Amino acid sequence: MSIQFWFSIGSTYTYLTVTRLPEIEKTTGIAFEWNPISIRAIMLEQNNIPFRDKPEKSEHMWRDIERRAQKYGFDANVPAPYPLEQFDLANRVAVYAKGQGWLRDYVTVTYRRWFQDGDAAGSEPNLSETLREIGQDHEQVVTMANSPEIEATYLEMTDRARSRNIFGVPSFTVGEELFWGDDRVEDAISWYRDGRVV
Amino acid sequence: MSIQFWFSIGSTYTYLTVTRLPEIEKTTGIAFEWNPISIRAIMLEQNNIPFRDKPEKSEHMWRDIERRAQKYGFDANVPAPYPLEQFDLANRVAVYAKGQGWLRDYVTVTYRRWFQDGDAAGSEPNLSETLREIGQDHEQVVTMANSPEIEATYLEMTDRARSRNIFGVPSFTVGEELFWGDDRVEDAISWYRDGRVV
Repeated sequence: MSIQFWFSIGSTYTYLTVTRLPEIEKTTGIAFEWNPISIRAIMLEQNNIPFRDKPEKSEHMWRDIERRAQKYGFDANVPAPYPLEQFDLANRVAVYAKGQGWLRDYVTVTYRRWFQDGDAAGSEPNLSETLREIGQDHEQVVTMANSPEIEATYLEMTDRARSRNIFGVPSFTVGEELFWGDDRVEDAISWYRDGRVV
Repeated sequence: MSIQFWFSIGSTYTYLTVTRLPEIEKTTGIAFEWNPISIRAIMLEQNNIPFRDKPEKSEHMWRDIERRAQKYGFDANVPAPYPLEQFDLANRVAVYAKGQGWLRDYVTVTYRRWFQDGDAAGSEPNLSETLREIGQDHEQVVTMANSPEIEATYLEMTDRARSRNIFGVPSFTVGEELFWGDDRVEDAISWYRDGRVV
């Protein structure tokens, strides 16, 4: 058993999780399995629209992310560009990256450029500069990310998330237990270790 | 300066906060000002509908409350009756109770009966048994809770919350800073003490 980490590049709170998770994985010795999915597809199906046309809730979301990033020891320049124009491309690159073994590097760097430099993930210059920074070939990666095989895998991973009743990201599953939100990382770890939240 | 605590009886996550807050107030020495408001009015205005017609999100909410209650050291029998039929009466009693000095007792007992015994707050038998338990006269309290003066105070407190950009409860304000959610109690305390979230 491991902790499954479900996310979409495009989710704002996922910035907090992907930025702090590598260190958490190191200090706890727990390997999270990172699963990029299309949470947009799921949320549209469920009529779950957390921020669009909700200025008060959106304002708090940005401020909360800024405060919590500082708590965790890194910066967030908010508001970051939102929503992403190239949401699906950003995530299909992640699906391809997972199969190639450089998913964590890609996700953390593209989020850093999005939330610290203000360049939207999935768009230029973020995508090409992220790939260059982590030593990947932009043209080849985009070709693969647009292939039918990667699209099929993306849909299949999204179906798996849907079957687990995931309704938002970041989410974590430990066996049958579902935890939603960056602020539930610690609860998921607790459940993984002790079978309860302490 | 103090920490303002904004809530509505009817909010599910507020169960966690009102049940653990008296102990937090004691151990930290920080007095929270408890402000009952009509979050339903605000959320309808903002088209903020977090749970209705969202079965996956609702299922997680109940399970999350159950797990977190156990973490905090008390029980939650979930799902509790929801939504409340007598939402406004439950909160107008709270507004009256605040002026009379027995707000904390009323709120914590009515929530305990709602989330542990399964009796909806604001309805019978919860309301009369809560008032009896805390030594208040049911008929007199309901008469006062239905008075124009209490209704006006209830609307005025809701207006104050609206002017603070509150969009959900439980919420906390420290000066200009807004924190939303039971899981932000510790951030609000941190801000109150240090002017930052640590």
